[in-house]
Amino acid sequence: MVGAKKQIVILGGGFAGIYTARTLERMLRPEEADICLVNRENYWVYQPMLPEVISGSIALMNVVCPIRRLCPRTNLVMREVEDIDLTNRIVTVSPGFRPRAKKIPYDYLVIALGEVTNYYGMPGMLENAMPFRTLADAITIRNHVIHVLEEADCEDDPDLRRKLLTIVVGGGGFSGVEVVAELNNFIHEVKKNYRRLREEKVRCVLVHSRGRILPEMAEPLALFAQKILKKRGVEIILNDRLVAATSEKAILKSGLEVPCKTIISTVPSANPPVLQKLDCAKDKGSLLVTTALELVGHEGSIWALGDCVSLKTVSGKVVPPTAQHATREATTCAANISAAIRGGKPAQFTFEGLGTLGSLGHGSAVAQILGVKISGWLAWMLWRNLYLFKLPGLKSKVRIGIDWFMHLLFPADLAQMRLEHESGIKNQHFEPGDIVFHEGDLGDSVYVIEKGECDVIKEEEAGPKLVATLQAGNYFGEMALLSDVTRNATVRASTALDVLLIPKGDFNRLRQSVPAFGEVFSELARKRTGRDN
Amino acid sequence: MVGAKKQIVILGGGFAGIYTARTLERMLRPEEADICLVNRENYWVYQPMLPEVISGSIALMNVVCPIRRLCPRTNLVMREVEDIDLTNRIVTVSPGFRPRAKKIPYDYLVIALGEVTNYYGMPGMLENAMPFRTLADAITIRNHVIHVLEEADCEDDPDLRRKLLTIVVGGGGFSGVEVVAELNNFIHEVKKNYRRLREEKVRCVLVHSRGRILPEMAEPLALFAQKILKKRGVEIILNDRLVAATSEKAILKSGLEVPCKTIISTVPSANPPVLQKLDCAKDKGSLLVTTALELVGHEGSIWALGDCVSLKTVSGKVVPPTAQHATREATTCAANISAAIRGGKPAQFTFEGLGTLGSLGHGSAVAQILGVKISGWLAWMLWRNLYLFKLPGLKSKVRIGIDWFMHLLFPADLAQMRLEHESGIKNQHFEPGDIVFHEGDLGDSVYVIEKGECDVIKEEEAGPKLVATLQAGNYFGEMALLSDVTRNATVRASTALDVLLIPKGDFNRLRQSVPAFGEVFSELARKRTGRDN
Repeated sequence: MVGAKKQIVILGGGFAGIYTARTLERMLRPEEADICLVNRENYWVYQPMLPEVISGSIALMNVVCPIRRLCPRTNLVMREVEDIDLTNRIVTVSPGFRPRAKKIPYDYLVIALGEVTNYYGMPGMLENAMPFRTLADAITIRNHVIHVLEEADCEDDPDLRRKLLTIVVGGGGFSGVEVVAELNNFIHEVKKNYRRLREEKVRCVLVHSRGRILPEMAEPLALFAQKILKKRGVEIILNDRLVAATSEKAILKSGLEVPCKTIISTVPSANPPVLQKLDCAKDKGSLLVTTALELVGHEGSIWALGDCVSLKTVSGKVVPPTAQHATREATTCAANISAAIRGGKPAQFTFEGLGTLGSLGHGSAVAQILGVKISGWLAWMLWRNLYLFKLPGLKSKVRIGIDWFMHLLFPADLAQMRLEHESGIKNQHFEPGDIVFHEGDLGDSVYVIEKGECDVIKEEEAGPKLVATLQAGNYFGEMALLSDVTRNATVRASTALDVLLIPKGDFNRLRQSVPAFGEVFSELARKRTGRDN
Repeated sequence: MVGAKKQIVILGGGFAGIYTARTLERMLRPEEADICLVNRENYWVYQPMLPEVISGSIALMNVVCPIRRLCPRTNLVMREVEDIDLTNRIVTVSPGFRPRAKKIPYDYLVIALGEVTNYYGMPGMLENAMPFRTLADAITIRNHVIHVLEEADCEDDPDLRRKLLTIVVGGGGFSGVEVVAELNNFIHEVKKNYRRLREEKVRCVLVHSRGRILPEMAEPLALFAQKILKKRGVEIILNDRLVAATSEKAILKSGLEVPCKTIISTVPSANPPVLQKLDCAKDKGSLLVTTALELVGHEGSIWALGDCVSLKTVSGKVVPPTAQHATREATTCAANISAAIRGGKPAQFTFEGLGTLGSLGHGSAVAQILGVKISGWLAWMLWRNLYLFKLPGLKSKVRIGIDWFMHLLFPADLAQMRLEHESGIKNQHFEPGDIVFHEGDLGDSVYVIEKGECDVIKEEEAGPKLVATLQAGNYFGEMALLSDVTRNATVRASTALDVLLIPKGDFNRLRQSVPAFGEVFSELARKRTGRDN
């Protein structure tokens, strides 16, 4: 051992980060190095089982494991990574209770920050589509789906009821397929508890950009999965993809529009912002690493692994972003850090995968293991047993085993676990012809046009009358809030329209506290009332 | 049976509302009446076990039961009650996905809306104290407590660490006692997983306004509970109460201040706003009902029960707001609605209680059953068995039984289940002398003074220098946001200070969209920079 105790900092607590920390804890003596792991959550998620959280067949918290118990010798910092200073070897993380940046110096750095869902260039997706990646995403989706069922049950308008009962899932890879399968199973299981929905049709639509789903698998298995999904009622739209969304519909590249209140999209992915701004060798945005997992240009001090890297094995094969590869990368990475500390030759990454597995729920799955293709119940048993076996910790194994057993005996849970919060100032997107609000609606927010145009229309005896056309920089909707009456006109987007939406509560608080802000809207209301008369 | 099918509307899904619906489903034939229940959640909470959710000894969702499964013949409307029109017999509920009010007409109305926590006249409590009443409250408290432990573990400032490790609970009734007991047990159990907290002292402080806790119980039992809590390290402050709070401390009536980052208050209670504005007979704010549970002045058409009413038994005893009374009230109420429909004499409420039970966790409880006082392990076994037995539905019984068994084998779960959301525009309260922000802090929000005054102080070589004094209507904190630098001065409250806090994200969005808003702050920043030079 040479010199002082080394500081190893691991960024990210997914499969790659956690398995690196665990392996380092085993390999290194406490006096050789301190291990610090930065993650925005204090738990690690068992990603393959996350879709089952949506349907409630695994309880919310049973799919996660506290990092402090998985890596007892690691110092966990539950913050966001905000900046990596490669020159001074310092990681800056987000502030905690006090607004001060926290800086963490490192001798050796492991970057395993994964990917994020990125809707750049897809209007309205950020505002209306739900990504599926984290536990919070899964819970949000579950709560939203229960919410639309509840609303559909007490809704009298058949148009709105149909929208509430339509769910669009974008992306036909493992993640999208498992999500749509679980959602479809869940809804059909709980529908009977909704007295007015028993006879209603529920549409679950899967949209995929290629000619068949599951590009990760051999064609026969993908076709098997398609057949099973269709048999259960899932609609599959191939060779098309989500390009835009509003609060009322999903819009596909082909021009097809699916009226719906629920859009989930598992694609497209991008590196997290902190890595996007990192100045280092990259391949189509992903960090470029050597076959020893070293960040190119920073060999011997920085390693990168998991979904955020572009990695090839020694034999030149591209390494896919899966858990089985991430855990093997972690072993190589930990060994190479140990070699850097103790001296020694770095190991190369040679693992080329054992196979692929995807669950379709309800006793069905597809698997391709060491070249053998299996589908149906056998694949499903394999899926469950393999993943249960791979779960670290006896507690998790027991808990998930019990959940699965309970789900055989009792129907799926349908309680909606909602945490209260006002929605706050936000953006919204409308397509041409969309109604922003109807005359007679309750006034719940004020709108500022950021891009596009809209028409203000009044219902008169002679028919609808165009009262005004508004454009970027204009405000509307203030009247109903200032006078506490219902909307006195209908507003309809005449082009693609992007607005900033200030909800009633925030509007009133700002109006009271910043008089100049309130004056803008009062003045406008005075003008508009004058014009009306 | 006389006339058309009757519409029965039940408001509230607590013990009182749910048991009324269940009893009505049994008593009435489907052709006699439609039953509609309005509740903001689609589940019913088993309130006595809610404190165990905080500590994780019962899993989040196992303490609730879907209302649709408990009351299969009832139409559930998952909305908030906004208005009760006694004249036209119409209930208005909050809008769903569309901003339109929903109106529900009734022939017979059951009001069982419970109580809310009300911090009126207690500065800073709304902003800084967490109520404990709903499942969302329990989850919020759990997440917050895990958050302070995580932050304490990576915090270097010993002062802040002490604040992070101090928890104040207001109210020494059943609810407050069970919460402080569970929290104290939980923290001591998980502390060993926090590498830097193992040797740190954690303070759990219970504040109660009278001379002893548990006013609902006989003195010897209350003293036993006090002894147990103290033995486990809980500090008990008697004859005092919370009167104000800031983000840094709890302030008691005696003038005592407890520096802390966690305040939970189970008191005081008030009727929900929709009942406050209801024009009917009341007793100290609670709805006044007859011994047949009829709302005074609306006999034969409106019944009220549960925590929102003032009720005396036939023998004149005041009925306490507990689950055992609420379920009996529900039986009487359902019988009387049935009598109103079919004709018959209303039943009177005569139930006078079987006893009281309170858990202290960790194998200890206090009980007073049919006059017999029990404490310790026997009372605890009684508590667990009785409540498990009382749980409706086999699934809930099995799930909670498993949770309790798992908790014997494995340590408490410490994963923090956080749902992402930006915090938005909010209020904050400071006491004289409190620091709003320090020179050098990151600029995370802009402040508008609503009440009080504060000093702007700069650190200079000769020592701190007072630069300005600001008062109601003034803004501050804009400089760091406009120029994206750290705070260039310290701001300290010189009186009690109430501010509106506009976070960076909202500030920038408003500035871009409403130029007049941005101009207010830019102008101010120009003036202030001029003055500085």
